[in-house]
Amino acid sequence: MTQTLNLASIYAPVTSGMESVPGIIRDILKTPNRRIEDVVRYFLSRNGKLLRPALVFLGGGLARSLSAGAPVPAEREETAELHLAAATEIFHAATLIHDDIIDSAPIRRGLPSLHVKWGPQTAVLAGDYFHDRAVVTIFRYGNDRIIPLFLKTAGEICEGEMQELGEKNNINLTEEIHFEILRKKTASLLACALQTGALVWGMDEARAEALGRYGNYFGMAFQITDDRLDFTGRENELGKTLGSDLGEGVYTLPVIRCLASADRDKVVRILHARNHGKRFSMLKTLLQKNGALEYALEKAKGFVSRAKAELEGFPESPFKTSLLGLADYVIRRER
Amino acid sequence: MTQTLNLASIYAPVTSGMESVPGIIRDILKTPNRRIEDVVRYFLSRNGKLLRPALVFLGGGLARSLSAGAPVPAEREETAELHLAAATEIFHAATLIHDDIIDSAPIRRGLPSLHVKWGPQTAVLAGDYFHDRAVVTIFRYGNDRIIPLFLKTAGEICEGEMQELGEKNNINLTEEIHFEILRKKTASLLACALQTGALVWGMDEARAEALGRYGNYFGMAFQITDDRLDFTGRENELGKTLGSDLGEGVYTLPVIRCLASADRDKVVRILHARNHGKRFSMLKTLLQKNGALEYALEKAKGFVSRAKAELEGFPESPFKTSLLGLADYVIRRER
Repeated sequence: MTQTLNLASIYAPVTSGMESVPGIIRDILKTPNRRIEDVVRYFLSRNGKLLRPALVFLGGGLARSLSAGAPVPAEREETAELHLAAATEIFHAATLIHDDIIDSAPIRRGLPSLHVKWGPQTAVLAGDYFHDRAVVTIFRYGNDRIIPLFLKTAGEICEGEMQELGEKNNINLTEEIHFEILRKKTASLLACALQTGALVWGMDEARAEALGRYGNYFGMAFQITDDRLDFTGRENELGKTLGSDLGEGVYTLPVIRCLASADRDKVVRILHARNHGKRFSMLKTLLQKNGALEYALEKAKGFVSRAKAELEGFPESPFKTSLLGLADYVIRRER
Repeated sequence: MTQTLNLASIYAPVTSGMESVPGIIRDILKTPNRRIEDVVRYFLSRNGKLLRPALVFLGGGLARSLSAGAPVPAEREETAELHLAAATEIFHAATLIHDDIIDSAPIRRGLPSLHVKWGPQTAVLAGDYFHDRAVVTIFRYGNDRIIPLFLKTAGEICEGEMQELGEKNNINLTEEIHFEILRKKTASLLACALQTGALVWGMDEARAEALGRYGNYFGMAFQITDDRLDFTGRENELGKTLGSDLGEGVYTLPVIRCLASADRDKVVRILHARNHGKRFSMLKTLLQKNGALEYALEKAKGFVSRAKAELEGFPESPFKTSLLGLADYVIRRER
């Protein structure tokens, strides 16, 4: 399909779950602590794309479409799916909160980051609280395939963050290591979300693994696009400060590509310039001219193709259509 | 027994476990990431008292002493006990690392806190890493009584921290709320450690609950003593900055007691004084004269008695003797 779907139509087959998720998230995060309650409300006031819950539901839908003959009433599985979808988003939020401290990011979803508005102390604690609530929910509603998957994923995210921190300001960072960081830091949780939905409904191992690969490729495309938008997007649409990765010494694919090109010396000079605003706009111009932004787009497209290929073994269903559409959407989005 | 034991003799029945724990901790925290590896080495260079691993082993010893007729080779349980002891200490370390950020504590175990030496970013991530490694280990080696206990405890610690944050600078903080915070923030993990050791060896529920109460009372005495030492101890022996709770607006039992006495107005005036050093020494003098430090000691003694009473149902054993000795030790220690 060449026509690009918007998010609303991609989410259409899982509307009922998506509508319930924000309420479940609020329930899980309910606390008598006034300060944290305020933090939760503040954080939830901008829901984001809820991509991870959507993946849980789409994975669940795919699994159910495989076993059309199964008994219909499945209240236990539906409750589990819903709570795991919420927990995945809360888990993601926890990593964002700590990530924003680690990266000194001033803005998140168009609002000042938690650590800016409430101070790093409250942000550390709020991240711990979100993490704790997510873990408790996963252990309550997960099964013995889902729980180990989450533990592995949590470890990978943490490893990815650590690796990223260690590679800051490294002008010799390879594409290979960079991709490994993206896979751990971003793609692993997207893959985990999709597989979680599938595993709630007992999907066979081979198909669940194919979904894991879809999630990983999709996640790579997603993050590469995110990083490209940092140079091509509009700040008010993205709801975050552009160029903050650069300011923190985190080099993303376009920069890594340019550093490996004949323009290497130019990039290094720009990276070492003092004035951040000027440095950022000079770099943007160079990345454009050099073809590095185009290169990143092509890489993302390659990952999208590989993601979609992983769905070939699945019968047609609205859920499969949505996952194919989502893969296309993710590289065409403007925010 | 009136004679006070030192830590070495208290730990004597569990020497072999205690000797193995540091190596297991290092194994669990092994990472290819250079920066985090440095952080781990730095953190482990001062082992602390390893009180939580000791409690795991003492709980395990108590459980084994109850079932003297059980088969001797129990490699699986011994491995589990050892790894859970290490995980409990790592879990504790994770809370300390984040706690020191939250409380802006400059010194821990006689060295600059992680967030001071490595910056808050690395400290946030290191805390997350320690937490993650602990959780993975607990899920690998815990059983279906231990895992829920840890989840509950992790939630309580987080809640306790949040409550403490919310009560900062509250001159109307009641002893009741303060005790609730101490129970959640400190006592719960000590109780959890002791119960974990017991549950590895399948202790019956009633006895395991008695151990939980011992742990809670013991933990209260431990923390009240810690807070009292903040006013009576010597900085170089304690390995931390005195008066830092006060500087952060965290009021501990002696201050709460004094605020509820005829000296209330004096305390309030002192708490609102600008110069921290002067404020701290004025407060010390007042707490001494007012009897508030003595009051805290008496409260701690009360908790010690209640802790020891919980062990009455256990047959004599070296492990029981150590737990009785530990309860006495904790309020007599100077550091």
